[in-house]
Amino acid sequence: MKHSAPSLASESPNASRVTCTARRARAVARQLAALSDRQRRAALLAAADALVERQSEILAANELDASAVLHLVEGERMTHAMFDRLKTSARGVAEMAARVRDVANLPDPLGRTLAATELDNGLTLYKVSCPLGVIGMIFESRPDVIPQVAALALKSGNAVIFKGGAEAAHTNEVLVAIWRDTLARLPEIPLDAVSLLCTREDVAELLKLDEEIDLIIPRGSREFVRYIAENSRIPVLGHGEGICHVYIDSAADLDKGLAVAFDSKVQYPAACNSMETLLVHERVAGAFLPQMIARFKSACVEVRGCPRTITLAHADSVVSAAEQDWATEYADLIVSIKVVASADEAIEHIQQHGSGHTESIVTDDRNLATRFMESIDAAGVYHNVSTRFADGFRYGLGAELGISTSRLHARGPVGLEGLTTYKYQLFGDGHTVAMYSQGERFFKHRSLI
Amino acid sequence: MKHSAPSLASESPNASRVTCTARRARAVARQLAALSDRQRRAALLAAADALVERQSEILAANELDASAVLHLVEGERMTHAMFDRLKTSARGVAEMAARVRDVANLPDPLGRTLAATELDNGLTLYKVSCPLGVIGMIFESRPDVIPQVAALALKSGNAVIFKGGAEAAHTNEVLVAIWRDTLARLPEIPLDAVSLLCTREDVAELLKLDEEIDLIIPRGSREFVRYIAENSRIPVLGHGEGICHVYIDSAADLDKGLAVAFDSKVQYPAACNSMETLLVHERVAGAFLPQMIARFKSACVEVRGCPRTITLAHADSVVSAAEQDWATEYADLIVSIKVVASADEAIEHIQQHGSGHTESIVTDDRNLATRFMESIDAAGVYHNVSTRFADGFRYGLGAELGISTSRLHARGPVGLEGLTTYKYQLFGDGHTVAMYSQGERFFKHRSLI
Repeated sequence: MKHSAPSLASESPNASRVTCTARRARAVARQLAALSDRQRRAALLAAADALVERQSEILAANELDASAVLHLVEGERMTHAMFDRLKTSARGVAEMAARVRDVANLPDPLGRTLAATELDNGLTLYKVSCPLGVIGMIFESRPDVIPQVAALALKSGNAVIFKGGAEAAHTNEVLVAIWRDTLARLPEIPLDAVSLLCTREDVAELLKLDEEIDLIIPRGSREFVRYIAENSRIPVLGHGEGICHVYIDSAADLDKGLAVAFDSKVQYPAACNSMETLLVHERVAGAFLPQMIARFKSACVEVRGCPRTITLAHADSVVSAAEQDWATEYADLIVSIKVVASADEAIEHIQQHGSGHTESIVTDDRNLATRFMESIDAAGVYHNVSTRFADGFRYGLGAELGISTSRLHARGPVGLEGLTTYKYQLFGDGHTVAMYSQGERFFKHRSLI
Repeated sequence: MKHSAPSLASESPNASRVTCTARRARAVARQLAALSDRQRRAALLAAADALVERQSEILAANELDASAVLHLVEGERMTHAMFDRLKTSARGVAEMAARVRDVANLPDPLGRTLAATELDNGLTLYKVSCPLGVIGMIFESRPDVIPQVAALALKSGNAVIFKGGAEAAHTNEVLVAIWRDTLARLPEIPLDAVSLLCTREDVAELLKLDEEIDLIIPRGSREFVRYIAENSRIPVLGHGEGICHVYIDSAADLDKGLAVAFDSKVQYPAACNSMETLLVHERVAGAFLPQMIARFKSACVEVRGCPRTITLAHADSVVSAAEQDWATEYADLIVSIKVVASADEAIEHIQQHGSGHTESIVTDDRNLATRFMESIDAAGVYHNVSTRFADGFRYGLGAELGISTSRLHARGPVGLEGLTTYKYQLFGDGHTVAMYSQGERFFKHRSLI
């Protein structure tokens, strides 16, 4: 079979199915790295067409999964949120295909020249973007993760191994089969660029394969992401918590403050980039907080406040915040509010309790804004803007793999670039280091871009 | 004391000395991030002056360490290489100071605008370089690591915690004291930007502090680096092995091949970027290998060859290579040679045995060179150049922290940039996401650079 990867499994007859899958992915990753953008783009467009053509097959498999989950919901009181994430529709499939086409048409993330230096005559160094290698995507529910991440991985020349939840097993199988069948028809693209693991035990084994897998992307509950990060030496792209703050400074335009804080909390409270704690300078707290709290209450937001917040609020509209409220990601229509004596106290509070996700200051004092944005150590630091803007699409990245609160590799909303690394390419004409160490030649180090 | 960091130790009375040191470093890292390049540069120049001024103190401490090691050399048959790395001199101290001045004068790695996008009118996103935070530097022998890495860390706005070997304890203490005394005289720079841990037990504890430390840089033997990487969830900048290849293609200029392969092996065999295995296309093996082997023998290189290499060589000049020779980093005057039937076999061999460090092809076939450089997954892929060029100074980075064979964050020779990350700064005017989700406004996503 033309498409089968070099059979590394044969070298180690005792390697497990998971290890074999990972090694095949590693082997084909090298072939993927050499594909042109034209070839990668064509594969994505073909997969998008196949998704639409095989819609009925997807929906039938999804119906099987959904009815099993519905049964669970009745029998074991599982949430309907899980069902919503799992269930797809004709419109859902059309959206999957549209997203794949969007990714196909993004600019090529590979082969970009990040730096170029003429080291000497005839000796030129290029720093060029290239694929990471093998991505492990571990997710719960949402089968639409498969076309989305397969598209991002392939567009950036990476192999991807999916491990979905048992609740979406049938849907996941059909979606991965559609990708593999599409690749099987394209002579230049290896089949094993996309593969699927099935059982819960597979995850534990996958997390150990740090030779074969370059990056793990977990998608699911906070506990799930934390479990993955704590149980693997493979780098994980994800984040544990999103505890975001908005600070209303004494020099704030209060109308902007009301709009920014309201949007940050209410626009989509379940998102990791929504605000959990609002900090308000004592000099404007009297003018600002009664209006702000009234707006929150009108949107059914539960308000938990420090003692000074409570004295400024109408009776019973604010409950007393406990110490642990300042360290809690509600991900819900709940906000904690604290009055601070200074911008420094706000910065201090954020440094102590923030999770390094997104922090916003509302002020007309540009110098203070600069100081806030320089001293706060977070993936996003905002001035007069809602924290809800922390998102790959809003940032113009064209796609989002996730939001990273790690400092290394990718930080903040991560698009295609997060699936790339770089290599140095050095072109010479028989150059040796001895020529330079013996003083026959000297480096020029002239930057070419 | 104006310089003491916020005393987080007081919050947790039971925290150990190591944890307290790391927390103080984390706390001051935030202050360092807000310093100007002028301030950071001034601190480095002051430290360089202090090194020269306190030369006699350094040399006296070094003498203490050296005599203890000399004693060990006699009593316990330790190598003189260790002594050479440990011992410094007036010239050594002058070089330390010169290196610190070099780093001081490098371009500012912080505040560089890596991307800028106008999301909408009045809503502009900048991706800006910023410090990583806290660096843990764990090293053996060489006390000159301290001024070099302290300079790199401070220049890039990071705090650094050193853990040196017991054999250089006195020298390390004086060197760190010189940095801290220098910082104590500069009101804007916190003392705890540079600190020192002492005991072997401290390492194990340090490796667990993934909340406080962002990057560990180990420097020492391969076993030492591997131990660090395997015993910490903190990202490690370093590399396990350097198994580099040179491939002499059928379309190679054989004179260039001789020069490149000889330099790659002989110029400094102990370096990680020196060649371990030479691959030669069968079509040129007869013309190339006898000359090549003669040159190697003239430089006292032990040659281990495949059966075809042995038949091409003079009697007894080549010993038979065992299978494990292809997977060995000799770091010595030993080379393994293999004749291959095709460029594809060479690529396959490198993919199987290479360590992702640096790989070179010698050929006049530009298309083949391109294919080699695209399909080989290594930090450096070279065309007609010695592998020995893989070095931060030769690359023009101005300084080198180490060479990374990891794919994430920094790859290949790592300079100042490896101690930075980025944050997104978003400037708006009261913008909310609701404006866009409700269709009142639309994103422009216009790139500004």
